[in-house]
Amino acid sequence: MRAAIARRGQLVVEDVPEPTPAAGEVLVAVQACGICGSDLHTLRHAHSMLALASMTGNDNPFDPDADFVMGHEYCGEVIDLAGRADGSPVKVGDTIVSLPMAFTPTGVELIGFSNRYYGAFAEQMTLTAGMCLPVPNGLDPRVAAMTEPMAVAVHAVNKSAMQPGEGALVMGAGPIGLALIAVLKSRGVAPIVASDFSPRRRDLALAMGATSVVDPAVESAIEGWNRAAGTGAVPVVYEAIGVPGIIDELCRAVPPGTRITVVGVCMEPDSFLPLVAVAKELMLQFVIYYDPAEFGATLRQLAEGEIDASPLLTGVVGIEGVPDAFTILGHPETHAKVVVVPGAGSAITPL
Amino acid sequence: MRAAIARRGQLVVEDVPEPTPAAGEVLVAVQACGICGSDLHTLRHAHSMLALASMTGNDNPFDPDADFVMGHEYCGEVIDLAGRADGSPVKVGDTIVSLPMAFTPTGVELIGFSNRYYGAFAEQMTLTAGMCLPVPNGLDPRVAAMTEPMAVAVHAVNKSAMQPGEGALVMGAGPIGLALIAVLKSRGVAPIVASDFSPRRRDLALAMGATSVVDPAVESAIEGWNRAAGTGAVPVVYEAIGVPGIIDELCRAVPPGTRITVVGVCMEPDSFLPLVAVAKELMLQFVIYYDPAEFGATLRQLAEGEIDASPLLTGVVGIEGVPDAFTILGHPETHAKVVVVPGAGSAITPL
Repeated sequence: MRAAIARRGQLVVEDVPEPTPAAGEVLVAVQACGICGSDLHTLRHAHSMLALASMTGNDNPFDPDADFVMGHEYCGEVIDLAGRADGSPVKVGDTIVSLPMAFTPTGVELIGFSNRYYGAFAEQMTLTAGMCLPVPNGLDPRVAAMTEPMAVAVHAVNKSAMQPGEGALVMGAGPIGLALIAVLKSRGVAPIVASDFSPRRRDLALAMGATSVVDPAVESAIEGWNRAAGTGAVPVVYEAIGVPGIIDELCRAVPPGTRITVVGVCMEPDSFLPLVAVAKELMLQFVIYYDPAEFGATLRQLAEGEIDASPLLTGVVGIEGVPDAFTILGHPETHAKVVVVPGAGSAITPL
Repeated sequence: MRAAIARRGQLVVEDVPEPTPAAGEVLVAVQACGICGSDLHTLRHAHSMLALASMTGNDNPFDPDADFVMGHEYCGEVIDLAGRADGSPVKVGDTIVSLPMAFTPTGVELIGFSNRYYGAFAEQMTLTAGMCLPVPNGLDPRVAAMTEPMAVAVHAVNKSAMQPGEGALVMGAGPIGLALIAVLKSRGVAPIVASDFSPRRRDLALAMGATSVVDPAVESAIEGWNRAAGTGAVPVVYEAIGVPGIIDELCRAVPPGTRITVVGVCMEPDSFLPLVAVAKELMLQFVIYYDPAEFGATLRQLAEGEIDASPLLTGVVGIEGVPDAFTILGHPETHAKVVVVPGAGSAITPL
């Protein structure tokens, strides 16, 4: 089968052996898989990511110098139950999504960051049967594949514990910022102010449900917030940029009592002035991932139309086009989320 | 009257004119006033503090190059009502404490950091009558003067939103760390693990209610916590050290999901690795001060014996001894909280 392989910092598309499901696993034909910013980052900086993960106690047996196939935002069709039809939580023909984790006798493998399990930039993959959730309501597999990134946003909004009457300021309208906007809209939050230098991403922010957008080249995010919400209103801030300096800039700019949920993943050391945060009694809640209940709830909300992820999807590409798509996604003016669909063309088709 | 005057970075004890209460104010004879770490800092670094305060939107008309009298942790006896006996919230002879703020026609003055109002390192001071709270139950004025620093700790514990069954790790057993321990004890929190390099302060931490103490020269605070609470228990952390690097050190050391309440005031830029905080979903709640309700509740809890502040008080000194006391308080092995009592001796009397 065809797969986009990460090999020493480059992507190459080659034939690879089809995977074989072990006991407790199912074989899945990939229908769609989103390309995540963390995929782009892993391709170039896997070693530093592993070193940082190790520092936080998350040792991963993954060897980025050996071949691996990325892709952890997937939807697929079950095509083989590994001889275990009785009692299987899913059946052949089911369209499913799953948390990107494989439970094996020797530990957990992160799908998309594993030398043993293919990620979904391939035609087929094997998944832990008990992790698979059938996709309801005939939801488009390309949208169902958004369960994973939308669950990140659902979790971040849950952790921020928004109260009735509070509005949100979303810093950065990349894929995670856009996902946050859709989730905030689904909860009836208003205003939702989004800040991004990119006109394209500001347009997408409005399409996802932002009530107004800010071009930080023209006015600061807080000025834009004040214009939308009224001076003195305290925003619930979502930091989805993840570059050094942004936390300090936010601490200086926001009003006292602001809660800042940090979703952006800044990989470098960062500096700030604690006294400013102290004097304003700011709260920084750092978040990552989601729990299984949030993942399932996100799928349900997508399937029932409560969360509209469709504006986030800006292009479709086949496996042959994955290397070019990675390059194009480095430019925010072009695409937000590109979905890999096996069999689609090797050039990105805009949606 | 005698007062300890801050004059261009030095303390001098001189005669100053007695203050005259304006309408809405009372004249108070100071009975006791604690020396706060912020007093020591202000004496040497008032300009940088003002610059930082201005950056956080707290402009203060205070000119540290002109004389001022510090002292904002006070208790005193009302001796004159400025001709306003009817309807006054307090009466002559009342022992009172108050939030250290004077409400004037031209704005709020921070008592102890004002060129217009004396702080309590003086024999007398004027206070806004409506801010004064009578001290109940005949509480020792030296303990009543601890209402202000204990209210800081009450507020910090309130903001940390501890849940039943959670234990606390207090980083630093200076006056604020010790105050935190007393408040945590009053709430029935266990274990309360305190970390400090100073043997004297570790002893005080135990006297205030810590269930165990850690010498970070021997083992890390988290190792000490794990020994007390069992490996895997997640502490609610109180950061009461306030030096650069401590937030980064904590982020790396604590287990995932830890909430860190930052009470220590780090005045310098600080660096940390956001990815570590993200990967562990840490929460940093920065706190300062208290609200009037917390101040009043703290006074009541001190007066009813629910919070025992007495081990914190390690010495008494008269106004003449304030300059020497400031020097001595730079050494953590000697004293925790020294209380200035007008008329006491010019050398510190240990309590």
